[in-house]
Amino acid sequence: MNILLTNDDGIYADGIAALYQALRASGHDVVVVAPNSQQSAVGHAITVSDPLRVDYIEMEPRISGYAVQGTPADCVKIAVNALLEQKPEMVLSGINHGANTGHHIIYSGTVSAATEATMFGIPSLAVSLDLSSMSGPKSDFTEAARFAATLPEMVKQRGGLPVGTLLNVNVPALAAGQIKGVKVCKQARFRHADIYEKRIDPRNRVYYWLNDEEVVVADPPEIDTDYRLLKAGYIVLTPIQYDLTDYEMLTQLNGWTYDL
Amino acid sequence: MNILLTNDDGIYADGIAALYQALRASGHDVVVVAPNSQQSAVGHAITVSDPLRVDYIEMEPRISGYAVQGTPADCVKIAVNALLEQKPEMVLSGINHGANTGHHIIYSGTVSAATEATMFGIPSLAVSLDLSSMSGPKSDFTEAARFAATLPEMVKQRGGLPVGTLLNVNVPALAAGQIKGVKVCKQARFRHADIYEKRIDPRNRVYYWLNDEEVVVADPPEIDTDYRLLKAGYIVLTPIQYDLTDYEMLTQLNGWTYDL
Repeated sequence: MNILLTNDDGIYADGIAALYQALRASGHDVVVVAPNSQQSAVGHAITVSDPLRVDYIEMEPRISGYAVQGTPADCVKIAVNALLEQKPEMVLSGINHGANTGHHIIYSGTVSAATEATMFGIPSLAVSLDLSSMSGPKSDFTEAARFAATLPEMVKQRGGLPVGTLLNVNVPALAAGQIKGVKVCKQARFRHADIYEKRIDPRNRVYYWLNDEEVVVADPPEIDTDYRLLKAGYIVLTPIQYDLTDYEMLTQLNGWTYDL
Repeated sequence: MNILLTNDDGIYADGIAALYQALRASGHDVVVVAPNSQQSAVGHAITVSDPLRVDYIEMEPRISGYAVQGTPADCVKIAVNALLEQKPEMVLSGINHGANTGHHIIYSGTVSAATEATMFGIPSLAVSLDLSSMSGPKSDFTEAARFAATLPEMVKQRGGLPVGTLLNVNVPALAAGQIKGVKVCKQARFRHADIYEKRIDPRNRVYYWLNDEEVVVADPPEIDTDYRLLKAGYIVLTPIQYDLTDYEMLTQLNGWTYDL
């Protein structure tokens, strides 16, 4: 298949290199269009006020492709609109260094790139490795890349994904034999428990720095969610779509009277 | 009510000033925590790699409040976690200079601030003015601000919004008598039709610039959506929630077999 590969950790990251190599080993044609630097927590940002510069990077056998001075969403947009001669059959985003589950999905550059693809009508996968489950000193993307590389052909053979829906894939950082299996389940609900550290700079000015966000799960314990099953050692697949309408509340709101 | 007000055009913008004044005129206690500069198309970005600086700006009777060197989502997070002494009863974000309908919602800093609030369990409204419907030379936020200022009390009296759901409000830039009414409806589906301009810089390097995105509506014409009804001259209310799971596809994916 003709695949567009991107990520949000940037073209020099280990995760995208592992996925590039695994996809090529599976016989796919892969074009890489990825940010030229790390884009953490950029959410679904697109660059409108600045120009986008594009360089071609060659580092075979590790990776080759276009490095864009922009966000993951920018990469997909510029790839499809300007850089690629033909529309890719599928877009893969990742492998992200860190999980993307629950409400972290909406901050995720990795997922936003896959979302952009669905808006062009291109089936897409976002792939992330949960580094918090890692035991060794260096993240090993081998298992995640091997598994993710089986998905494009599989999705294609099953008739693809619905227009507007992407597949969000999270893999625990465990050795092959330790992964418990593959589960399909819903996105978790998180509540926030952020901590901002208040500090004083050398000129006595106050500044704040976001400390690690703690995840507080809001789902009842009996519900299977991406967050829980990933932590339990499963590869987790969640289909994601972008009609955000709350239909239950919509019906209620229709019964209200408004002062115009 | 005790209201936190933010936006993505920044604390110096006309839209937030109009809403600040209208909320105060309605008797609400308003604390402003807004970006110190315009944050266009930042999506749901949060600042993790840099410190956040905060200044207090006083420009009464126009506006007063905290100016944060960050995104709209940052503003809500730092307000609730560090700046405010008590949790606000409601968060309002806006008035945005430009509509936020359909898939533009996922790029919208205005909506992302309201989303952050829902994750703290605080009811929230995102308010935007459709400047494309404007006839005069300067945007007039008066009608939008007047209407938006009626909503906090109304939502409170109706028992609030479900946890995790925000109300997305779009107002056409028409004079009071010309607005056709208030409608509650679903988010529109857009397809992309972007154009990137390829240019050459003075040093003969190629760069690209995103030209205006054209909206291509993917919904059948008989369906009422936020985009269509706003263009038709209505104020449009859409309840928005963040469980992005595609439940129909989830059931199908459960029937697939995976190669682990």
